[in-house]
Amino acid sequence: MKDLFELGGKFFNSRLLTGTGKYSTDEIIPQVTSASESQIITVALRRVDFDSPYRSVMDYIPPNIQLLPNTSGARDAKEAIKIAQISRASGHGNFIKIEVISDNKYLLPNGYETLKATEELSKDGFIVLPYVNADLYLGRSLKDAGAAAIMPLGSPIGSNRGIRCMEMIRVLVELIDLPIIVDAGIGKPSDAAVVMEMGVDACLVNTAIASSPNPILMASAFKDAVISGRNAYLAGLGCRSSIAVASSPLTGFLNG
Amino acid sequence: MKDLFELGGKFFNSRLLTGTGKYSTDEIIPQVTSASESQIITVALRRVDFDSPYRSVMDYIPPNIQLLPNTSGARDAKEAIKIAQISRASGHGNFIKIEVISDNKYLLPNGYETLKATEELSKDGFIVLPYVNADLYLGRSLKDAGAAAIMPLGSPIGSNRGIRCMEMIRVLVELIDLPIIVDAGIGKPSDAAVVMEMGVDACLVNTAIASSPNPILMASAFKDAVISGRNAYLAGLGCRSSIAVASSPLTGFLNG
Amino acid sequence: MKDLFELGGKFFNSRLLTGTGKYSTDEIIPQVTSASESQIITVALRRVDFDSPYRSVMDYIPPNIQLLPNTSGARDAKEAIKIAQISRASGHGNFIKIEVISDNKYLLPNGYETLKATEELSKDGFIVLPYVNADLYLGRSLKDAGAAAIMPLGSPIGSNRGIRCMEMIRVLVELIDLPIIVDAGIGKPSDAAVVMEMGVDACLVNTAIASSPNPILMASAFKDAVISGRNAYLAGLGCRSSIAVASSPLTGFLNG
Amino acid sequence: MKDLFELGGKFFNSRLLTGTGKYSTDEIIPQVTSASESQIITVALRRVDFDSPYRSVMDYIPPNIQLLPNTSGARDAKEAIKIAQISRASGHGNFIKIEVISDNKYLLPNGYETLKATEELSKDGFIVLPYVNADLYLGRSLKDAGAAAIMPLGSPIGSNRGIRCMEMIRVLVELIDLPIIVDAGIGKPSDAAVVMEMGVDACLVNTAIASSPNPILMASAFKDAVISGRNAYLAGLGCRSSIAVASSPLTGFLNG
Repeated sequence: MKDLFELGGKFFNSRLLTGTGKYSTDEIIPQVTSASESQIITVALRRVDFDSPYRSVMDYIPPNIQLLPNTSGARDAKEAIKIAQISRASGHGNFIKIEVISDNKYLLPNGYETLKATEELSKDGFIVLPYVNADLYLGRSLKDAGAAAIMPLGSPIGSNRGIRCMEMIRVLVELIDLPIIVDAGIGKPSDAAVVMEMGVDACLVNTAIASSPNPILMASAFKDAVISGRNAYLAGLGCRSSIAVASSPLTGFLNG
Repeated sequence: MKDLFELGGKFFNSRLLTGTGKYSTDEIIPQVTSASESQIITVALRRVDFDSPYRSVMDYIPPNIQLLPNTSGARDAKEAIKIAQISRASGHGNFIKIEVISDNKYLLPNGYETLKATEELSKDGFIVLPYVNADLYLGRSLKDAGAAAIMPLGSPIGSNRGIRCMEMIRVLVELIDLPIIVDAGIGKPSDAAVVMEMGVDACLVNTAIASSPNPILMASAFKDAVISGRNAYLAGLGCRSSIAVASSPLTGFLNG
Repeated sequence: MKDLFELGGKFFNSRLLTGTGKYSTDEIIPQVTSASESQIITVALRRVDFDSPYRSVMDYIPPNIQLLPNTSGARDAKEAIKIAQISRASGHGNFIKIEVISDNKYLLPNGYETLKATEELSKDGFIVLPYVNADLYLGRSLKDAGAAAIMPLGSPIGSNRGIRCMEMIRVLVELIDLPIIVDAGIGKPSDAAVVMEMGVDACLVNTAIASSPNPILMASAFKDAVISGRNAYLAGLGCRSSIAVASSPLTGFLNG
Repeated sequence: MKDLFELGGKFFNSRLLTGTGKYSTDEIIPQVTSASESQIITVALRRVDFDSPYRSVMDYIPPNIQLLPNTSGARDAKEAIKIAQISRASGHGNFIKIEVISDNKYLLPNGYETLKATEELSKDGFIVLPYVNADLYLGRSLKDAGAAAIMPLGSPIGSNRGIRCMEMIRVLVELIDLPIIVDAGIGKPSDAAVVMEMGVDACLVNTAIASSPNPILMASAFKDAVISGRNAYLAGLGCRSSIAVASSPLTGFLNG
């Protein structure tokens, strides 16, 4: 039986979500997407130029990709809701990633405003993916509010610092019955592997791919890391011991 | 141009070396090997029953695989040398992994005896891969003694504790002009990815695969992790920052 | 000028807060308190037996100690408020540590209910210390609600797992203009030293002292660790470098 | 009974060894030494100007301090031995810390040459403290050669990167019956506390004190960290659990 990733009533082979920001040129996006085998791509709606005679970032997103517009730039629930509605009205579908950020230094998500936006947009028929701190009670409230998944941050957006909130993410994985997608802070493929091994359902990676000198090869590296981590989780990890255990029986060879 | 792994004058596609110990049954070895895509397999010569009417572990190693006999069980240079010679005389080729261990608790390698064995066996035409603590001067001496690669341990054999000697392995990668293959202590695919990202040439994994409830799927997970880490190394990692950096410009959307 | 710790308008020499739970016998509390040099002690009000002919835990708390009753056992704001009021009415003063926990597995604090209790109790004249997840926005809301300090958890209560939420605690230290007191998860004196070095104002330690085979000596160890970390913070840490730098000039001695 | 540190047949109250390098001015050394309460100070013999009309660094070392001259600058056993002999002949006593370094980038110690020097100098009546990588077999050889203690590095000299070789140091603590003194790489007081908690006998700190903006206060911080870690080790640490354990019984207060 195939191990598919279900999100918002749809099924995906890939558990790696990617983004469209920070590339030196948007023209590389199709190749990066192809190398990543990602089937879900997030795009900041404010980057979409609806009236431009030039090509918009949307033009570079391959067909058959699930678009995940995000509300980047929103500073409260009201703004997030408005962006989501513009997105849907513009034909970008009903998936929406809620980002509500008013802290300008660490770009941390505002949980309370995110919860309000999630509640209203879920009622309005959106598939809502809130980006939040890993917090058990907030996670439960988001589930009650109709969220389709929880997107806890690994560490502050774009810092490439790896997973600094592991313990709390682990609690979400164990106690919240929704897909958990780690977003932000994944700096290396091994960071993605670590959270997938631990049981997270998917990862969203943007900066670490876009800021590599070779984004296409890095996208491929993340693709493999996410598959690896998922398979390790499914296979089951062996136990750690504090004492070395010989790989082969230690009965001597020569004097055995 | 293909990124091949050169070892002892041969070229390999795979950078994941595997082992044959600790499986519940040796019959699973062909499937695990296939899933791992490993092309180099280590086997403890003492596990080979030369006279048995039953099948030996050797019978389960697929053809076209580079055999890497090891001297597991040797307690000094003399014993390691003797095992190596028996191995070659028995038709197992001239690759040899030197393990000299006299510490029964942590199974740590004896650097000085390993160096002596490396020196003698290299002169005698062997392709010698010494298993040692990550130590710069020992690494240099091993290179001078003719070693084909250095195999530093990540942490004590079979402990599945992950990479605990990273800083010293990094020094070897930077300053020793030989393939560096991390051996022992790799407990999860993400551990393998971490050292490959850092520039290590290959990884040897046995316990973490063999002790998984599903060794075949775990072998596949390690295959992908090693490929991922290698590609990330080749692509180049982005820089860490201590301040969050927005994935998209922060000029507001709604009031922009 | 003396480096004093200001909390709720009072000044303290010690930055180590201790607790009264989990001791094999309450009779050891005076000695532990003395060894810790703690001046602020938290006590679960439900442990206080108001009618008992036997001695209550209160009887073991030395005089001249600032009592910090806590609302352990409260599952929502309403219960926390009620406990606080009983505490004050019983003569235990107006300091109150808010704990609102409804998760029975990881005992994580409910941020939203804690905020409600903080708001009401602050208006009612209490000195309120809320125990919460390290979250920037929640921290700001708590400050606006009148909190006297923020008590972020290092990791789940009583797990002795050390500091697992460092990055977020660091953000609080930098951006919230209130005393930050790390509570829960400090398993070893070095954990306390680490957060104090980073600029946290104080630490609350209970389990790690009470569960040591020698609580009095461990209390002394925590006393020194907190002083050490504070002094290191005040002195300023040197910079890390990735290349070794000789302690003395490397011009040779013998051939110099 | 007092917990004294025995080294070379002498007994010390303090388990913090300090150095004399890298200070902006040597004149601060007496105050730093006093604040650290260190009773053993290492000095690079090449920094001692035997003929200078100006004051030598020796003039700043308080009386009643055990001098620990080191062979910094030595590139092989022969040079180390010569420096040790000059040191003793100059009246600096028979304690000697062996540093043999020929790697100019990471300043890592040469174990083999250090062992040779240790052997010869021990026979010649010196109290020999070799600075080495944490390696079990080398440790055993050094003990057999007469070393008075083993000084494993935490990470490369002067890098302030903290303890990166913990697992191997732990093995030395458990299996080598000699004082283990962690030297190099201790960047913060909490690093010293961590190794002391684990059972190391003493720490040598130089760069982290000398490079602080306030070396005197930082010396005091290290003094407390070492005492703290030692006491925690003696008291015994509680166990970690992966599930939170309430500090007080969870029977409800209000509805109890």
